[in-house]
Amino acid sequence: MTDFKKLVSDIEGLGANKMYQGDFFQTWEKDDSEIAATLKTADALRSLRERNISTKVFDSGLGISIFRDNSTRTRFSFSSACNMLGLEIQDLDESKSQIAHGETVRETATMISFMADVIGIRDDMYIGKGNAYMHEVVDAVKESNADGILEQRPNLVDLQDDMDHPTQALADLNSIIHKYGGVENLKGKKIVMSWAYSPSYGKPLSVPQAIVGLMTRFGMNVVLAHPKGYEIMPEVEKIAAENAAKSGGTFTKTNDMKAAFADADVIYCKSWAPFAAMKKRSDLYGEGDFDGIDRLEKELLAQNAQHKDWACTEDMMKLTHEGKALYMHPLPADITGVSAKEGEVDASVFDRYRNDLYIQASYKPYVIAAMIFLSKFKQPAKVLQDLETRGQERQLSEN
Amino acid sequence: MTDFKKLVSDIEGLGANKMYQGDFFQTWEKDDSEIAATLKTADALRSLRERNISTKVFDSGLGISIFRDNSTRTRFSFSSACNMLGLEIQDLDESKSQIAHGETVRETATMISFMADVIGIRDDMYIGKGNAYMHEVVDAVKESNADGILEQRPNLVDLQDDMDHPTQALADLNSIIHKYGGVENLKGKKIVMSWAYSPSYGKPLSVPQAIVGLMTRFGMNVVLAHPKGYEIMPEVEKIAAENAAKSGGTFTKTNDMKAAFADADVIYCKSWAPFAAMKKRSDLYGEGDFDGIDRLEKELLAQNAQHKDWACTEDMMKLTHEGKALYMHPLPADITGVSAKEGEVDASVFDRYRNDLYIQASYKPYVIAAMIFLSKFKQPAKVLQDLETRGQERQLSEN
Amino acid sequence: MTDFKKLVSDIEGLGANKMYQGDFFQTWEKDDSEIAATLKTADALRSLRERNISTKVFDSGLGISIFRDNSTRTRFSFSSACNMLGLEIQDLDESKSQIAHGETVRETATMISFMADVIGIRDDMYIGKGNAYMHEVVDAVKESNADGILEQRPNLVDLQDDMDHPTQALADLNSIIHKYGGVENLKGKKIVMSWAYSPSYGKPLSVPQAIVGLMTRFGMNVVLAHPKGYEIMPEVEKIAAENAAKSGGTFTKTNDMKAAFADADVIYCKSWAPFAAMKKRSDLYGEGDFDGIDRLEKELLAQNAQHKDWACTEDMMKLTHEGKALYMHPLPADITGVSAKEGEVDASVFDRYRNDLYIQASYKPYVIAAMIFLSKFKQPAKVLQDLETRGQERQLSEN
Repeated sequence: MTDFKKLVSDIEGLGANKMYQGDFFQTWEKDDSEIAATLKTADALRSLRERNISTKVFDSGLGISIFRDNSTRTRFSFSSACNMLGLEIQDLDESKSQIAHGETVRETATMISFMADVIGIRDDMYIGKGNAYMHEVVDAVKESNADGILEQRPNLVDLQDDMDHPTQALADLNSIIHKYGGVENLKGKKIVMSWAYSPSYGKPLSVPQAIVGLMTRFGMNVVLAHPKGYEIMPEVEKIAAENAAKSGGTFTKTNDMKAAFADADVIYCKSWAPFAAMKKRSDLYGEGDFDGIDRLEKELLAQNAQHKDWACTEDMMKLTHEGKALYMHPLPADITGVSAKEGEVDASVFDRYRNDLYIQASYKPYVIAAMIFLSKFKQPAKVLQDLETRGQERQLSEN
Repeated sequence: MTDFKKLVSDIEGLGANKMYQGDFFQTWEKDDSEIAATLKTADALRSLRERNISTKVFDSGLGISIFRDNSTRTRFSFSSACNMLGLEIQDLDESKSQIAHGETVRETATMISFMADVIGIRDDMYIGKGNAYMHEVVDAVKESNADGILEQRPNLVDLQDDMDHPTQALADLNSIIHKYGGVENLKGKKIVMSWAYSPSYGKPLSVPQAIVGLMTRFGMNVVLAHPKGYEIMPEVEKIAAENAAKSGGTFTKTNDMKAAFADADVIYCKSWAPFAAMKKRSDLYGEGDFDGIDRLEKELLAQNAQHKDWACTEDMMKLTHEGKALYMHPLPADITGVSAKEGEVDASVFDRYRNDLYIQASYKPYVIAAMIFLSKFKQPAKVLQDLETRGQERQLSEN
Repeated sequence: MTDFKKLVSDIEGLGANKMYQGDFFQTWEKDDSEIAATLKTADALRSLRERNISTKVFDSGLGISIFRDNSTRTRFSFSSACNMLGLEIQDLDESKSQIAHGETVRETATMISFMADVIGIRDDMYIGKGNAYMHEVVDAVKESNADGILEQRPNLVDLQDDMDHPTQALADLNSIIHKYGGVENLKGKKIVMSWAYSPSYGKPLSVPQAIVGLMTRFGMNVVLAHPKGYEIMPEVEKIAAENAAKSGGTFTKTNDMKAAFADADVIYCKSWAPFAAMKKRSDLYGEGDFDGIDRLEKELLAQNAQHKDWACTEDMMKLTHEGKALYMHPLPADITGVSAKEGEVDASVFDRYRNDLYIQASYKPYVIAAMIFLSKFKQPAKVLQDLETRGQERQLSEN
């Protein structure tokens, strides 16, 4: 059986049709079969594209993107995913839009969705806002579809919210599954999600939370390491602990970076802002207290500066399993001496893992395409097989 | 005969080929058969799409958009229309363009049109400018096509000018035709185009003018209501009066909102700026007198504030036919207590008609697609029938 | 033999497969057969499109554009070229991107290229930067492709660098080849690349350099004319001289505009900034000396103002061959009394050649499409023939 046939058969077996007409919010809302179906569908789509077989399942239709924060990687990943399925990107650039003050989310969501098959949203800046906004959008389009206003029901892909970054974490997960030759080989591996110093301020919590919220599901020993005061959201810690218990792995926390790195198999090391501070910032923003936000920023930078020793250095990497843990990062990284005077990672460490990091990133377009695909087909395995059988070339062949 | 077959047959009967290679400027330049062909073609395209039948008539080609004012609804409608026909949007963002000071419209229009099949323009800000600019663009591309410079002749869709808003008014018209079960049922209905208070300044005249300029063609009793001083352009009033006389309806004006609402079947209620003020504003702009524009704005806001009683309240709606007139608005509305302290409409009225308003908006992409379609085919009825026969799926089916 | 058959046969004979998987940087890096293949492929693609035959060779895929300077003509040309081949444009708008300070070009280039088939870059502002940046991007994607990170290798189209403007010069060349009925008829023709006065500052050197660097290859007598102090880069002059020697033409320089125009067959007349000044500006920019840049700008404007007599006037045109030389310009031009008080060209001269200028511009989308096409197919002649045989309609026919 070829790999592709095996993937199709696995997807068939997972009963992936439960994702039909659904949305992809946070990973912890999806059961194990849904996570598995997403990754296997991503692999199947990749297999087709690598063999120059078209994955266009739409002959027309729009993919709407709403980015409430700058983005390069996720923006291009979403565009790529839509394009490979046959959807054209239409970006809602709020600065060019005539969105009335106080206009309801229901109205905007409906107005942009008359021919939308998918909506991708990044909204990660304020605690309590991003995921809530995505739910408002989804509720709106579901209602408008049920009311006969929208002919089709656009499905949501969460491109990063204030708690989770599902497309990132799933791409990361798929990259280590491929690295270790199968999800079953992740059992017992030690993966560290560690805070690291960065001269910039207020990096989202959604990446570290996404990592501990997802990686705890596969029997790994997941360690969350950070200086005191850099706690993540308690509800995500709870999810991680429950996942670990269920999967036969562990979830531990430490304020000792060296203890965390000891004998680790995978190091995921990046800066984030403390949950308490992010919460305060959201509150100040809600009150329109911009002086308060400025003061908070100064405090946080000063607090960060006390932890410049939290960096993924060569010495730290030596502590890992055989000194050869896989180093991961969602990019762009603050590289000491390159993109920052003092940063998250030594240049030599970063350079050694550069290709691994780029391959890690390469999974994201396919993960997004899989999320869309599974929301659109009741029988995803059959449609994947049909695509192979159809054998339409992506690039015209010369034979 | 199915509805689709009937639509195709009706379009055939209308001799719609007269729109071939034409442009869609203002509705009053089109005869009744052209208006009818546009709406029936919109319905036929919608029927195909609702049945998952592809309406792609282009395998490649560009649809150019030029928005000289912010837009969400019209921007997405134009994108949707182009996409469903197979054209990719290329936006001329004048802020990113290297358009030389004094460069002729003919030059820019030609330079962006080498592979353009359609050009959509919104230019509604200054009296005497928008429609004139669109004509300059059309003259340019026609000349360049005739001179052998452009291989194809891009056709224009007026996405709102300084006088008319044809795609809005035709979508609105189609929505009431469907509401009443046929254009013949509009005869004798009373429709009110009423001014309403808004705290914002300088809303375009093109919507109220579009409504009275179009709705008077179908035997309705059309009432234009506004406070003294909020007159629209006299030439549009003249068009409306002539239309009414010809169609067997009426066109009346009043400064009494209650009299207007009495026994009305349809209420279209929104704010606009007086024609005289808009004219003055355009002149000041022409003179570069920005202080003058600021003064004018203050005067207009003060003038508006004297008419806060002009609002579509529950009490006003009770005056309408059985208290149940259809409430219409192009959106976004200034809703009292929601998007404005005091606005155009009570929240409870707006909420009751929300679905109707959204359905009203849903006709716009198809109206635009129909305009493009009719400009591209000599035998539109035949091509629509061919599309059904071809039966290409928009989304790959699972059967 | 039809023209199309002849083109296909010529392309076959040129052994154009040497451009497969290559990039299009500066024209002087391409040999004569590559230049010929590019123009003939452009003509073949144009022939197909003019006959409503689809040139889509991709069913999906992205064309990435990076514009580090404003652009209308080149932006639309690149979009058109990608669209006609089946690629969707994804623009890297650096202002909306999350590109970290100090992030390597390799990283950004890889991150945007997971599904990119082509990258078009305009980077013409600073001497020593644009071409270097493009090479960095190409090195990055080649390495990432070789390392198995990128599934396909995006090929570069140089949309204007700090030295050359290959898509402009090749479109210009193709326009005079068609004007004179064949490249062989260019031999012995006198073409003048002349500086002209413009009230604006710092126009790129890449156009005049592109012209003398390319037109010297076809046996023409190429004259570079400018006031003292407006020298172009010495290395490009060297290339031009070598080309002329090899092709049996001449390359001469003069500071006498009248002598240059005397008996000329083709006049290419536009403003540019002196190489020495552009070099200084790049250095000041590198040092962050913005006051210095302001001072330099003032000096250059004063220097320009001493040469207002360098204009393509009716009197000057009378000096040319039978008073009827072809007037060329990349557009937009500074037209005296139209787009500038005093400019590069008399309005009456410009008007007389308007259609020629627009036709000149019409070649650019096809030149870009040809560059992409040749980088994607080992057997371009065969694929072009296959496209004609496939005979897919671009716009659905009515028969």
